[in-house]
Amino acid sequence: MAAKVRVAVNGYGTIGKRVADAVARQSDMELIGVTKTRPSFEARRAVDAGYPLYLAGDAAPADFAAAGLPVAGRIEDLLKQVDLVVDASPDKVGKANADLYRAAGVRAIFQGGEKSDVAEASFNALGNFSAAHGKRFVRVVSCNTTGLARAVAVLSAKWGVEHWEATLVRRAADPAESKRGPINGILPTFQLPSHHGPDVRTIFPELSIATTAVVVPTTLMHVHVNHVRLRRPPAGSADVITAFRAAPRFRVFAPWEHVDGTPQVMEFARGRGLPFNDMMENVVWEAGLKLDGADLYFFQAIHQESIVIPENIDAIRAMTNPSVDAGASIAQTDRALGLARAPA
Amino acid sequence: MAAKVRVAVNGYGTIGKRVADAVARQSDMELIGVTKTRPSFEARRAVDAGYPLYLAGDAAPADFAAAGLPVAGRIEDLLKQVDLVVDASPDKVGKANADLYRAAGVRAIFQGGEKSDVAEASFNALGNFSAAHGKRFVRVVSCNTTGLARAVAVLSAKWGVEHWEATLVRRAADPAESKRGPINGILPTFQLPSHHGPDVRTIFPELSIATTAVVVPTTLMHVHVNHVRLRRPPAGSADVITAFRAAPRFRVFAPWEHVDGTPQVMEFARGRGLPFNDMMENVVWEAGLKLDGADLYFFQAIHQESIVIPENIDAIRAMTNPSVDAGASIAQTDRALGLARAPA
Amino acid sequence: MAAKVRVAVNGYGTIGKRVADAVARQSDMELIGVTKTRPSFEARRAVDAGYPLYLAGDAAPADFAAAGLPVAGRIEDLLKQVDLVVDASPDKVGKANADLYRAAGVRAIFQGGEKSDVAEASFNALGNFSAAHGKRFVRVVSCNTTGLARAVAVLSAKWGVEHWEATLVRRAADPAESKRGPINGILPTFQLPSHHGPDVRTIFPELSIATTAVVVPTTLMHVHVNHVRLRRPPAGSADVITAFRAAPRFRVFAPWEHVDGTPQVMEFARGRGLPFNDMMENVVWEAGLKLDGADLYFFQAIHQESIVIPENIDAIRAMTNPSVDAGASIAQTDRALGLARAPA
Amino acid sequence: MAAKVRVAVNGYGTIGKRVADAVARQSDMELIGVTKTRPSFEARRAVDAGYPLYLAGDAAPADFAAAGLPVAGRIEDLLKQVDLVVDASPDKVGKANADLYRAAGVRAIFQGGEKSDVAEASFNALGNFSAAHGKRFVRVVSCNTTGLARAVAVLSAKWGVEHWEATLVRRAADPAESKRGPINGILPTFQLPSHHGPDVRTIFPELSIATTAVVVPTTLMHVHVNHVRLRRPPAGSADVITAFRAAPRFRVFAPWEHVDGTPQVMEFARGRGLPFNDMMENVVWEAGLKLDGADLYFFQAIHQESIVIPENIDAIRAMTNPSVDAGASIAQTDRALGLARAPA
Repeated sequence: MAAKVRVAVNGYGTIGKRVADAVARQSDMELIGVTKTRPSFEARRAVDAGYPLYLAGDAAPADFAAAGLPVAGRIEDLLKQVDLVVDASPDKVGKANADLYRAAGVRAIFQGGEKSDVAEASFNALGNFSAAHGKRFVRVVSCNTTGLARAVAVLSAKWGVEHWEATLVRRAADPAESKRGPINGILPTFQLPSHHGPDVRTIFPELSIATTAVVVPTTLMHVHVNHVRLRRPPAGSADVITAFRAAPRFRVFAPWEHVDGTPQVMEFARGRGLPFNDMMENVVWEAGLKLDGADLYFFQAIHQESIVIPENIDAIRAMTNPSVDAGASIAQTDRALGLARAPA
Repeated sequence: MAAKVRVAVNGYGTIGKRVADAVARQSDMELIGVTKTRPSFEARRAVDAGYPLYLAGDAAPADFAAAGLPVAGRIEDLLKQVDLVVDASPDKVGKANADLYRAAGVRAIFQGGEKSDVAEASFNALGNFSAAHGKRFVRVVSCNTTGLARAVAVLSAKWGVEHWEATLVRRAADPAESKRGPINGILPTFQLPSHHGPDVRTIFPELSIATTAVVVPTTLMHVHVNHVRLRRPPAGSADVITAFRAAPRFRVFAPWEHVDGTPQVMEFARGRGLPFNDMMENVVWEAGLKLDGADLYFFQAIHQESIVIPENIDAIRAMTNPSVDAGASIAQTDRALGLARAPA
Repeated sequence: MAAKVRVAVNGYGTIGKRVADAVARQSDMELIGVTKTRPSFEARRAVDAGYPLYLAGDAAPADFAAAGLPVAGRIEDLLKQVDLVVDASPDKVGKANADLYRAAGVRAIFQGGEKSDVAEASFNALGNFSAAHGKRFVRVVSCNTTGLARAVAVLSAKWGVEHWEATLVRRAADPAESKRGPINGILPTFQLPSHHGPDVRTIFPELSIATTAVVVPTTLMHVHVNHVRLRRPPAGSADVITAFRAAPRFRVFAPWEHVDGTPQVMEFARGRGLPFNDMMENVVWEAGLKLDGADLYFFQAIHQESIVIPENIDAIRAMTNPSVDAGASIAQTDRALGLARAPA
Repeated sequence: MAAKVRVAVNGYGTIGKRVADAVARQSDMELIGVTKTRPSFEARRAVDAGYPLYLAGDAAPADFAAAGLPVAGRIEDLLKQVDLVVDASPDKVGKANADLYRAAGVRAIFQGGEKSDVAEASFNALGNFSAAHGKRFVRVVSCNTTGLARAVAVLSAKWGVEHWEATLVRRAADPAESKRGPINGILPTFQLPSHHGPDVRTIFPELSIATTAVVVPTTLMHVHVNHVRLRRPPAGSADVITAFRAAPRFRVFAPWEHVDGTPQVMEFARGRGLPFNDMMENVVWEAGLKLDGADLYFFQAIHQESIVIPENIDAIRAMTNPSVDAGASIAQTDRALGLARAPA
């Protein structure tokens, strides 16, 4: 049996704590430690979970001692013990960390808040799995880009995509980001088309895509409003529904489930019982999908906090195991994470 | 000098109170009375404004007496004194009122919450002014449709519209509708494409248009995300900005004005000082408009409470004065309403 | 070993689905079935969890068949098989169900949305456990009353309560109740003092208490602002903190945990991993508690969806097992539910 | 006739733009100019209103020139022309400006965001008008403190106040502050009792008062939940209602007006037509007030943006006209501002 990949998670916030849990659930990976810059209820959760805690940035050891949180060393100590680090530090800090990782001689995965040039390849498991094979620095694209890339992967493989238009209705803050607004209002993103389209092209370089975005006062999920012109369209909407139901990392809701929008999606997620009540799949509604000739309209909801978690796991595997293919890795990841397939 | 058109407003809520104020400001119209079904701070406002108050529906005279609100009669009494009634009752009630208006032999204007077959014509001042000439029953299209129709009118006249796509990010409730949610979440509208496209075609029957919609937790304004394929595109974005600045009922914000989204638009409106701090114009941002070849992307914000008010006034004039044309009526309406043109 | 108590849950919504899970975790209880009036993602969750599904109200069997949800019968069939039913139907429906339960000869627990006269006793585990001994109909008080009663129990036992004042800042809707507002605004509850004080007195008849309430646009938790005049006050705030830390069903957050308000409390709960990311304890902050002579000021946050769940379990046990006492039942319930005690 | 008081307003944001309008409406004052640090729609409003615009802080003249906004000089130039400056700069900046004002030899009014030691006296018109007589530096207390002080003034004068308790349910951001949260959640203010009580005592030094506060996701108004122990209580609630109706700067809503909460208060305000749809009065509800023996419970809503505006005007008058008394100044201010008294 091959040795497990030894993994560090640098930053134990919204993304990092989920990646840590996900790594800990994989039989071919071992979580060596996580980092924190200050004590908090999240730092305590790491300790309670048995994840060795290391200090990063300007963290003060005395603060952790006062909080009764045992510390195993600093990030530099952690990096000496691992094969790979998942950088889950705040946007733009990842780039600054790259030198640290390079100096330590470890592979590294960055998140979508970094620019694509931070890494050798941008990555999405369904989209371009093999692009990460053997790479030392890989970037998992952002939540919105991941959601789009998955849908592109499914539709382009089956019917070809002539052109993709999407309006991204973005949640303004994560649930615990209580300092961010707006409380009441809509903020257009004054970049036309938005950067999300080009970001999808880091995965699908040939894709014709144009995206726009607005920010709205909710914390739960983004919603994408998609209009896709297909090259070889199927007979009807039902074929597209069937394809999404068959694809990994999609959850299709039927009308009788009475899921009216993102509040009910998250309620479903709470009842399913994954950690943090996460919804790692693209959410599609039967009633919210319509094929009209070659024109496909559909909504998808994207859980910004968790959708990239399985992608980080697949990226670790693709980078460190040149013989694994996308299908096998995705299946292994999803089984370990408890991602149930939608009922047929 | 011609006699003034004698106007009743049936329903003195969000739309009705604004129409009443707007009629009262026109030199060629006379507000004869408004109706209410129960006493409230709004009923008191009508009395304080000197608008004769009539009862409608199951209104109880004793309730008004107890509140100290003088009543001039019932809706049936009011209809006997007028040439035209603007129906501003809740959605679907308008249709039920049609028989009442027919029996009274008065002209009537309905709002966009009614289906188009309630009237002989659907109306938008910039779009199809003359369609209301001489008609007895006219329907002013809804806030979203009005916003779209105005933009279609401007762009199609100058450059031709090959195809129009719009995602409507809709406010979930008006500011005082405190019982309506959602408080946190996004609700897709499960009708693809949405009904707004066909509704725009009641004004522009030949237009190729597809719309989609989501509902978000805000009370201020809708935001439309538009992608328009122009037939004979101008040289650049600046030409389109110039066209919107030159058009009536558009307000274009420049970057230096620091209007980031709908919260700042409404703050601007509060400072301008129209009644109810209304924003009756389509709001466009210079920074939120981009022409890329023949593809025009732009955001527009639509104040759902007030955008149809000048249209109701123009509809009254078009129906009752066969010699007036769109330009003259719009100019007269806007001057009376204090709609300042954007600075050049 | 005594036979397990056979339990039905009538209504599988916000409260019912949690009670069902909680009953299923108790070694001395057996969940016989739950009811639903229409198919939904929640009905499917019951089926997936292996809870036999029965129809209630005007549920149509054909709807469930179409959704592929197997049905075991109607509520009447279910009641024949159980010792006790937990009524978790919508407010006021519980009272209507009482006749059904009486006819079936089963014990019943009602929720706090019903008036107190629906049952022989109102119940709170820390407050008046023994009041439920041997009773056939018991009412578990509402979420706000439960939160208050627990705090009263702790403080009155140790130091005596001269008078209690509380302002309840109430969440307007549960997370998935997407039709309820307000979206932006504060609604005072025009009942002074509010009904919560008298409801606490159903548990502590002698308590001097006055409460007031406002409704605010959030879905997460209520917050109580308490001012308590103690009879025999301790030396300082630290003593009160110690008492809350030592009490069951309280979670005290320390300043270093950086829990600023209800968003962070729920983030903590998501990381803890109880079903539905529930927070069944009263939440108290060290930094949000101050003893000034005999005057104690403190905030507590109350998770409206889950706080009554352990109380329902204790009520079942108290009603069916006359020999069990409060301490033993609470400890057994909490162990089964995974309610960790706060770190010392 | 006495010379008009020459007034500058330093800062033309939420408070400053309102003070400027209010000064311009007073027959005994003259607005000499306002300041801005960057061009914006608000700067343009000042220009459109004919208010000479001066630069403050690090404002760049070129930015204003590019925006087409004429500038009359810098704050230092403005101060040379005035008797008094109203400082409406952001919190804590006012203190830094004090030296500037002292050097210029002008009187100055500061806002409640500054600490009380910035000035010789803290001020509320109903509470301690004469404390500002002849002073050079005066501080108008904050919106919440102003709302409390007005109510204290009315109740203590008539019936004596034994003790005052208030929970302040605070709006989290002003309508156009789109960067501030929380979007969903309640944040307790971890200061017990809160600073508002001591701040009220800068007006009423002998008052026994304890306040607490929470922050909630709304932009419209604060709501105070008051419990007042009166010394010589009247016979019933109606007497208190009558007193509030008779007091200046109070608006009492009757049940038939159907004003359920702050959304409807602001809708009333929009219909009344003061600039910015302001609500400068304390808002009290008949249905939200209850006298129980000596214990008075009542809600009041406070419009954080505008409630201090008439107080700033009165402070100007008190500081510069030693012969004016509170009643005369308040009446003059309110008449000029269009503050209608509530119907009897």
